[in-house]
Amino acid sequence: MLCLRSRTESAWLARAIAATDEILVDHAHCERKAATQALSLLARFPERMDLVAPMLALAREELDHFELVVAILRERGVPLQPQAASGYQAQLFQLVRKSGDDKLIDLLLIAALIEARSCERFGLLSRNHPDESLRATYRSLLESEARHHATFVRLAESIQGRETTAARLAVLAEAEREILEGIPAMARLHA
Amino acid sequence: MLCLRSRTESAWLARAIAATDEILVDHAHCERKAATQALSLLARFPERMDLVAPMLALAREELDHFELVVAILRERGVPLQPQAASGYQAQLFQLVRKSGDDKLIDLLLIAALIEARSCERFGLLSRNHPDESLRATYRSLLESEARHHATFVRLAESIQGRETTAARLAVLAEAEREILEGIPAMARLHA
Repeated sequence: MLCLRSRTESAWLARAIAATDEILVDHAHCERKAATQALSLLARFPERMDLVAPMLALAREELDHFELVVAILRERGVPLQPQAASGYQAQLFQLVRKSGDDKLIDLLLIAALIEARSCERFGLLSRNHPDESLRATYRSLLESEARHHATFVRLAESIQGRETTAARLAVLAEAEREILEGIPAMARLHA
Repeated sequence: MLCLRSRTESAWLARAIAATDEILVDHAHCERKAATQALSLLARFPERMDLVAPMLALAREELDHFELVVAILRERGVPLQPQAASGYQAQLFQLVRKSGDDKLIDLLLIAALIEARSCERFGLLSRNHPDESLRATYRSLLESEARHHATFVRLAESIQGRETTAARLAVLAEAEREILEGIPAMARLHA
């Protein structure tokens, strides 16, 4: 599914359903972070004006999703608290190479992998969560996560070509699988 | 004007008009940074869900302005290059007190002052820039900068009351005047 090298096990799903509020809080933070990361790409590579339109579109959509999840939290009476990070993103970003195009490609492909993993897990939640209205919410988000994944991969391809991108994506996807396996069980989208 | 303690001198205006492209590049960066800073407030004070709606509205508007300025750069064939910072924002943010509500109020009021200074200077450019189309652009941005200023002050007041907010704003506005005076002449919105 979408270049991922592992399939999420049912233990994650059980944990996520049992800790729905915690997963929703993490989800809100993830949407906000994704918007910030899209803008941070524009800050770090300002001269790449080809990134402006896709990153703006993406940031706007992530902000819409953030707003949606915050509204769900409000309805449930759940505060948007700070949460300990699982370390998933921090470990992934440690793999970013240091210079120029390599750095940009790695940032794009890691963003693509994070979107792919969200997509896979929203898929599980959209089919299995006991709350019908949450199932619908996750279903509605699936499609954009898949589209964002494709946007990031396409941008990487436009910079270093299909073959180089595919090779690097395979390496990073394998690392993503290992990182995820090493994270202790906790109620996070990426744990 | 809008709580500022100094009026921009004509030397700044002459410098800005002479270096229109450089000012536009700075402007684009400022709009992107303002969006990021609004999201960063949500990241630093997640439990303050009263900030979500105003900061989202603000971030979205700043992204629209960023897009507008990038379109103008494209038309003029000017690349969105990285620029050396004037130090204005960095020096202002050094004044932020360390804890809780004081920290939040200071971040809000510094943001209010940055918007106020942009507003004052867009006003000068909207009346005096030789390019009619740029004059119209600056005129169109004036109103939102003033509104953003008011949003930040209103949020600060909702947290610490009118009197405390006014007293702190006076202190920070005085510091803003001093910081701006100390910055060497360069073509930046805040220099």
